[in-house]
Amino acid sequence: MADASVLETFQSPQRLPYVIEHVAEEFTSLCPMTGHPDFGRIILRYCPDETCVELKSLKLYYQSYRDEGIFYEAVTNRIRDDLVALMSPRWLQVITEWRGRGGIHSRIIAEHGEVPQQWAPG
Amino acid sequence: MADASVLETFQSPQRLPYVIEHVAEEFTSLCPMTGHPDFGRIILRYCPDETCVELKSLKLYYQSYRDEGIFYEAVTNRIRDDLVALMSPRWLQVITEWRGRGGIHSRIIAEHGEVPQQWAPG
Amino acid sequence: MADASVLETFQSPQRLPYVIEHVAEEFTSLCPMTGHPDFGRIILRYCPDETCVELKSLKLYYQSYRDEGIFYEAVTNRIRDDLVALMSPRWLQVITEWRGRGGIHSRIIAEHGEVPQQWAPG
Amino acid sequence: MADASVLETFQSPQRLPYVIEHVAEEFTSLCPMTGHPDFGRIILRYCPDETCVELKSLKLYYQSYRDEGIFYEAVTNRIRDDLVALMSPRWLQVITEWRGRGGIHSRIIAEHGEVPQQWAPG
Amino acid sequence: MADASVLETFQSPQRLPYVIEHVAEEFTSLCPMTGHPDFGRIILRYCPDETCVELKSLKLYYQSYRDEGIFYEAVTNRIRDDLVALMSPRWLQVITEWRGRGGIHSRIIAEHGEVPQQWAPG
Amino acid sequence: MADASVLETFQSPQRLPYVIEHVAEEFTSLCPMTGHPDFGRIILRYCPDETCVELKSLKLYYQSYRDEGIFYEAVTNRIRDDLVALMSPRWLQVITEWRGRGGIHSRIIAEHGEVPQQWAPG
Amino acid sequence: MADASVLETFQSPQRLPYVIEHVAEEFTSLCPMTGHPDFGRIILRYCPDETCVELKSLKLYYQSYRDEGIFYEAVTNRIRDDLVALMSPRWLQVITEWRGRGGIHSRIIAEHGEVPQQWAPG
Amino acid sequence: MADASVLETFQSPQRLPYVIEHVAEEFTSLCPMTGHPDFGRIILRYCPDETCVELKSLKLYYQSYRDEGIFYEAVTNRIRDDLVALMSPRWLQVITEWRGRGGIHSRIIAEHGEVPQQWAPG
Amino acid sequence: MADASVLETFQSPQRLPYVIEHVAEEFTSLCPMTGHPDFGRIILRYCPDETCVELKSLKLYYQSYRDEGIFYEAVTNRIRDDLVALMSPRWLQVITEWRGRGGIHSRIIAEHGEVPQQWAPG
Amino acid sequence: MADASVLETFQSPQRLPYVIEHVAEEFTSLCPMTGHPDFGRIILRYCPDETCVELKSLKLYYQSYRDEGIFYEAVTNRIRDDLVALMSPRWLQVITEWRGRGGIHSRIIAEHGEVPQQWAPG
Repeated sequence: MADASVLETFQSPQRLPYVIEHVAEEFTSLCPMTGHPDFGRIILRYCPDETCVELKSLKLYYQSYRDEGIFYEAVTNRIRDDLVALMSPRWLQVITEWRGRGGIHSRIIAEHGEVPQQWAPG
Repeated sequence: MADASVLETFQSPQRLPYVIEHVAEEFTSLCPMTGHPDFGRIILRYCPDETCVELKSLKLYYQSYRDEGIFYEAVTNRIRDDLVALMSPRWLQVITEWRGRGGIHSRIIAEHGEVPQQWAPG
Repeated sequence: MADASVLETFQSPQRLPYVIEHVAEEFTSLCPMTGHPDFGRIILRYCPDETCVELKSLKLYYQSYRDEGIFYEAVTNRIRDDLVALMSPRWLQVITEWRGRGGIHSRIIAEHGEVPQQWAPG
Repeated sequence: MADASVLETFQSPQRLPYVIEHVAEEFTSLCPMTGHPDFGRIILRYCPDETCVELKSLKLYYQSYRDEGIFYEAVTNRIRDDLVALMSPRWLQVITEWRGRGGIHSRIIAEHGEVPQQWAPG
Repeated sequence: MADASVLETFQSPQRLPYVIEHVAEEFTSLCPMTGHPDFGRIILRYCPDETCVELKSLKLYYQSYRDEGIFYEAVTNRIRDDLVALMSPRWLQVITEWRGRGGIHSRIIAEHGEVPQQWAPG
Repeated sequence: MADASVLETFQSPQRLPYVIEHVAEEFTSLCPMTGHPDFGRIILRYCPDETCVELKSLKLYYQSYRDEGIFYEAVTNRIRDDLVALMSPRWLQVITEWRGRGGIHSRIIAEHGEVPQQWAPG
Repeated sequence: MADASVLETFQSPQRLPYVIEHVAEEFTSLCPMTGHPDFGRIILRYCPDETCVELKSLKLYYQSYRDEGIFYEAVTNRIRDDLVALMSPRWLQVITEWRGRGGIHSRIIAEHGEVPQQWAPG
Repeated sequence: MADASVLETFQSPQRLPYVIEHVAEEFTSLCPMTGHPDFGRIILRYCPDETCVELKSLKLYYQSYRDEGIFYEAVTNRIRDDLVALMSPRWLQVITEWRGRGGIHSRIIAEHGEVPQQWAPG
Repeated sequence: MADASVLETFQSPQRLPYVIEHVAEEFTSLCPMTGHPDFGRIILRYCPDETCVELKSLKLYYQSYRDEGIFYEAVTNRIRDDLVALMSPRWLQVITEWRGRGGIHSRIIAEHGEVPQQWAPG
Repeated sequence: MADASVLETFQSPQRLPYVIEHVAEEFTSLCPMTGHPDFGRIILRYCPDETCVELKSLKLYYQSYRDEGIFYEAVTNRIRDDLVALMSPRWLQVITEWRGRGGIHSRIIAEHGEVPQQWAPG
């Protein structure tokens, strides 16, 4: 099951604001209604404060959703909450993009703090 | 005929503002002048308040236009009105993109509430 | 219902072999199992003998599948059969490309006569 | 010759502001210096007030430039003027994109009223 | 675990040779060395003899690899073997495309019978 | 009206076989049924014998179709015939690609002599 | 050598502000250090005041750099200065894009007046 | 090892503000954890004050990271610091784009001074 | 230095002929003339006999070229020779694609055995 | 003026047949009729016998056409002749692709020896 305890951080090499983006192309969870797998892509962007999320632990965290039955909207908000709790970033943005079902594909965007306008997914 | 009564909602998992986008690639209705089919793509974006539109019901709602003779401009405004009545979202945007006739293809954009500038179709 | 009687022909302007291709981007029929609409694209290629299919009648013929419940494989073979019966072409190829359901999209290819290798969809 | 009298309107189905875009891929006129044909693409965007331009009449209007010798800059401004006179829209934007001559291709943008920044061609 | 017993067939609507292609964009299995998930795309092409694989059962069959630890080469050959045993097609081709690890992405191609040269993945 | 007398040739600089391709992006003629303009792209490929078509004269020849009402199939065969008569090439291929009407776009291919298989438009 | 005296203007057909863009795909000059040719693309955008630059003279002006040894930064600023002196436009933007040397490709942007934010090359 | 002493400058040809962008497609360093090579692309944008970085020296500076074990975040901030110290530009932006490991690819953005909003990587 | 001793094999899971392709996007070696780094992409295709090259060992083998001064043509032939000696495949093809220097980019293709025509890089 | 004496060779590292491709993106010569510059791309493919053309000398050879007035067809055949005289390759192919004038862009293909069918530009 999805498990935020696998997440690790490291000390940011710079106290001035800068931006980090990690794009995970291979996310999968299960539809809680039908049990069928959902496939998606997760874009994480944030401005670190004191710590950064360690990349390999982020990958393991995403993999922990593999057997979880969870809606698009809930996944997105949970990832946002877990990463905000982990790092207390200056701002953070999570975009999930889903391959779709029945001819409709979807994106969900959740944010924390003042995300600069330039990062709008538009 | 187009039927908003098939639309269903579920409780949003999060009270903070976030954004949901559903892109339907396979929309078809009829031209009210000629009876010939029109084909298009519908982009729906909104920031939920208390409820979200359920995805399968949205698909059935779009399918209910299959035998309806209706202009581009009217389809777009009707979808906007039906979804605003259903969910009372903080803001909502409907973009219809049409494959075109006679060498001209078209887009119509209708909005409700204060759509952030980043979502401009541009 | 699908209706081959709307198809019309005109006299080919040339008795030497040449090739005609018509690509219809906007085909829709119904899934015979679920009643949900299928959306696809139809590529027709042929080498005429004495007659060619008239373009507007071809469009009407494709539109006549709009309310028909029919499998991918059957649509493709029926279009092949109807057009071969209409024109007796030297060779003919029908390729249907379907947008897909549940993460799988499909193509079906049916041919008549000796289609030159260059036209392989590959 | 270019003829604005072919343009027709219909009543907008909605009094709230919304946006209409028509993209004509197949525009041709003549270069007034050399008589050679120019080929282009015309993007029209506007926010209707009471009326909308009827799509078929717009197509005929564009076709009426086929034998007209006229510069890029003049075509663009004339289309803007004719459509503003026809519809009195809240705002309107005309972008012409030309395939080019001698290795230089061009765009001309003319506007009326307060075009929202999101529609900048950029 | 991967389970060929979920596969079902239906009677082909046509005895003349034709070609069927199903492209599954969302395949996932596990690396037998590391346990990490692999993600890929599976292209199936075949010329049916008497029966065709039913599309929904094919989807369930692919989903049954979700928890299986198996190498790229073995998945590809096993899918080929299972589908040949199911349908006895005139010819059949399975192409698996893998998103890759460590900067290397891979394809594996397995075939049965005389696959026409045009279908070479090349 | 279409006028082959504007075509000019020059002496080929080489007696060994080689291949020349000219792609005209901006062709327009008229539909003989409706009078509406058709827009297309013409690909000419040939292996010269003693002479080559001069490029500027080819452009003027194509422009001479601007006011001609003529079907897709007839344009293609006429260009083939005119250029074969002009140059007596070892082989020649004319491909016309049309932007389409009513959701169907078309290509017509006419050839002279033994066109090597590699030039198949496929 | 680069020669602004070849530039010519014509009277703008419109006194209201509008925007003109000319994209030259085929620019070449020489590297002043090595003598090797540089190849680039030049995007010119401006809002005319009373006059516009004539397109053929612009082409000749760009061609006059063919034998000039000049740095990227200097070319860009010189084109800006020459065109501002010629036309006194309301605003003007010159973007040069260079194919690059040794794995690095470059763009230089020079502007005059208040270029609206929408025209940012971004 | 990474060596800022190879960097050289030249006098900017223009005191008015303008923008310079250099995109290096071929950057490689080493992962400090595993020793495996990382591959990336570096976008540098700045508005010069009195001096510009010389292009060949920039290439050598980037090459000096080839044997350095260093994290994505640290590379990006170090390049920013070295170039700001070298040129004292009005503003400067460094974007590093990394091909990724284990299905996740990353971008890091570091800036100095007031970077105009138009240059947001978005 | 390039070191074939890191290569490992595993037993092929299938004795019937099939095809394996590994595409390495991130190859780098040094130019033996200038010492500057070269960057490329390596496509390996083969039909195994008894053994297959193990993917991680292939990655390490490619990495062992990082500090080697070697020409494009020699790299390509050496990889071919090393892999043929390792696996004795039924056939094998190595394609190296190089990002280029001074405006020229290159590909080198070396083969072993009877590579089916379909695999031509063309 | 075009000067084959700048071309140099080196000894091929391998006596077995293999293929070398060099793509020059930045070729320019002059139109012998108008004096205006032509811009193109040159693809060279060959199977070496004893020697290979040295890459930097090839670049200088192409640059020597910069001030030469010469037709497309003649450039292509002359490059073929010069390189065949230099290297006596097993086979050789020269493809020139030209950006075009007046809406028509062109390719010329000249070959020496038995070029395998797979290399057809098609």
